[in-house]
Amino acid sequence: MQKSTWVATPNIAVVKYWGKKDSQLNLPANNSISVTMDEALSTKTTVEFSEKYKEDELVLNKMRASESDLGRAVKVLDAIRKMAKIKYRARVESQNNFPTAAGLASSASGFAALACAASDAAGLKASARQLSIFARLGSGSACRSVLGGFVEWKAGKKKDGSDSYAVQVASNNHWPQLRNVIAVVNPGRKKVGSSEGMELTANTSPLYKERIRTIGKTIAKMKRAIIQRDLQSFLELTMRESSHLHAVMLDTFPPIIYLNDISRQIIEGVHDLNAKKGRLVAGYTFDAGPNAHIYTLEAHVGEVEDMLSKISGVKKVIVCKVGAGPRRLPSSESLF
Amino acid sequence: MQKSTWVATPNIAVVKYWGKKDSQLNLPANNSISVTMDEALSTKTTVEFSEKYKEDELVLNKMRASESDLGRAVKVLDAIRKMAKIKYRARVESQNNFPTAAGLASSASGFAALACAASDAAGLKASARQLSIFARLGSGSACRSVLGGFVEWKAGKKKDGSDSYAVQVASNNHWPQLRNVIAVVNPGRKKVGSSEGMELTANTSPLYKERIRTIGKTIAKMKRAIIQRDLQSFLELTMRESSHLHAVMLDTFPPIIYLNDISRQIIEGVHDLNAKKGRLVAGYTFDAGPNAHIYTLEAHVGEVEDMLSKISGVKKVIVCKVGAGPRRLPSSESLF
Repeated sequence: MQKSTWVATPNIAVVKYWGKKDSQLNLPANNSISVTMDEALSTKTTVEFSEKYKEDELVLNKMRASESDLGRAVKVLDAIRKMAKIKYRARVESQNNFPTAAGLASSASGFAALACAASDAAGLKASARQLSIFARLGSGSACRSVLGGFVEWKAGKKKDGSDSYAVQVASNNHWPQLRNVIAVVNPGRKKVGSSEGMELTANTSPLYKERIRTIGKTIAKMKRAIIQRDLQSFLELTMRESSHLHAVMLDTFPPIIYLNDISRQIIEGVHDLNAKKGRLVAGYTFDAGPNAHIYTLEAHVGEVEDMLSKISGVKKVIVCKVGAGPRRLPSSESLF
Repeated sequence: MQKSTWVATPNIAVVKYWGKKDSQLNLPANNSISVTMDEALSTKTTVEFSEKYKEDELVLNKMRASESDLGRAVKVLDAIRKMAKIKYRARVESQNNFPTAAGLASSASGFAALACAASDAAGLKASARQLSIFARLGSGSACRSVLGGFVEWKAGKKKDGSDSYAVQVASNNHWPQLRNVIAVVNPGRKKVGSSEGMELTANTSPLYKERIRTIGKTIAKMKRAIIQRDLQSFLELTMRESSHLHAVMLDTFPPIIYLNDISRQIIEGVHDLNAKKGRLVAGYTFDAGPNAHIYTLEAHVGEVEDMLSKISGVKKVIVCKVGAGPRRLPSSESLF
């Protein structure tokens, strides 16, 4: 058994995952669509299975991981051990090139890198489909990060989750001008974790049922917009879907509110920019936090950055291209 | 024809009005339920019809009113002239005992006082039903302020609006311990007007249809909670309905966001207080702005005020009881 080191990147959904059919297997209530980012943000992970380890060990950014993170990693490792028919425990080291707590989808890149590196270290020749199932066990949205480009996570119908995996809608070369301008915003306050929040929404929001009932149409429209590189439709659908999800979060009891006054200023700034241009050139989406992901084209990145520079609560701006997905690193890059 | 002076008070809805079937007649898409406040906040209005006036004149807080406010007042005056079979133009003076722009439902108290004073000045013996129809022509929610206590505005079915009026669910003596603790919050930013916002929501929000489809059940539950003085149900329904409406506003495109970071702190403060008490003792509701209206009982007003005193963006706190509705003032109180 040899060590394996992989790098993976976050993905930012344009049709969001919120609500589980099965919280052990992370089976989602609905299909979702995301764009995998390039390595402006990335997680590098080294895995080794060996008889020398008595228990699975997980080191995140040079710190021993929490019990909760370790437990999620063990679910992924167990599934890989079962398929590879090995019994060895593993050592996992993982490093982000960005702050973990900043709400930048580090669990997606982290569990995708883990699934790839651990499968490889275990000697499996796993397909993207299988890798996405492994990654999903650690974090639902991580299953979309095992592929580059534009990705759909099929919710699936089977109870064992064997048909709940990611497929590529289009590769990273399909729309090379597309950018995600990330506005990092200080959250400033405690937030509800997304697993807990999803469960609360599903149990208490009357509007959630309507979201689930109608989201198939949104998925179909979004795929068409991506395949046709229809910027107007892509941006409008992205903004509407983001607000639609945050509406359902607000309809939860007690309400879940991730958008703050800075997020609101960004929303207004994007609408003002689009109004000034007379067409949509930018579209925001927000995950379970106040950071904005603003999809735009290369030609408009400067205008989006100008707009953000006028909002005092924006701490940092990161520009991502569409990424190619995880890749194996040479052994010289091993973290241990 | 003699002058008449009336005082009326705002009402704060616990099942909200958002969306019109007819914007000329202010016919709402759904029934709504409100509580009329006492005279902690009030509007006093004097009306005189006379041949000496060449045109209708409207003075608000000692300033000549805007064309838009004048136009709304003329709709009310025209309806009253038609019923009273008079042709005289009118002079109207109106004063609030609170800042007009603070988002404290001054149009509700203002148009209710106008309907009462103008009907009286025109010599009509108008019923509450008729007064509520007059007030509705100026501002939809004003129709609920012509009655005291707990009030339902029936949306009605007729095209001419003759069955769209307010009825009393229970009088102001029904639940004498009930209080509305108003937290006045600096809006700090431009806001979308409610008429414009309602139209945008009805035209663009996919979740709005679901709200309208299901609101009949909320109305029935709220009436039962009021009649039974069931505080737990009343407070939970009030909070859920507020968030439900603000969710639909957020689902509008572009999104309408009235809640700000201070509103969010108040929401959390109320949930924290309820959690500490082990039962619901307070319930917030928000209209088209960031001010919070916190329904509670007299016994818990101190705890609610303590909670609000820890939130730095709360500028002022006003405590209202349930009010008895508009009343006629002696001629010595005339504004001109």
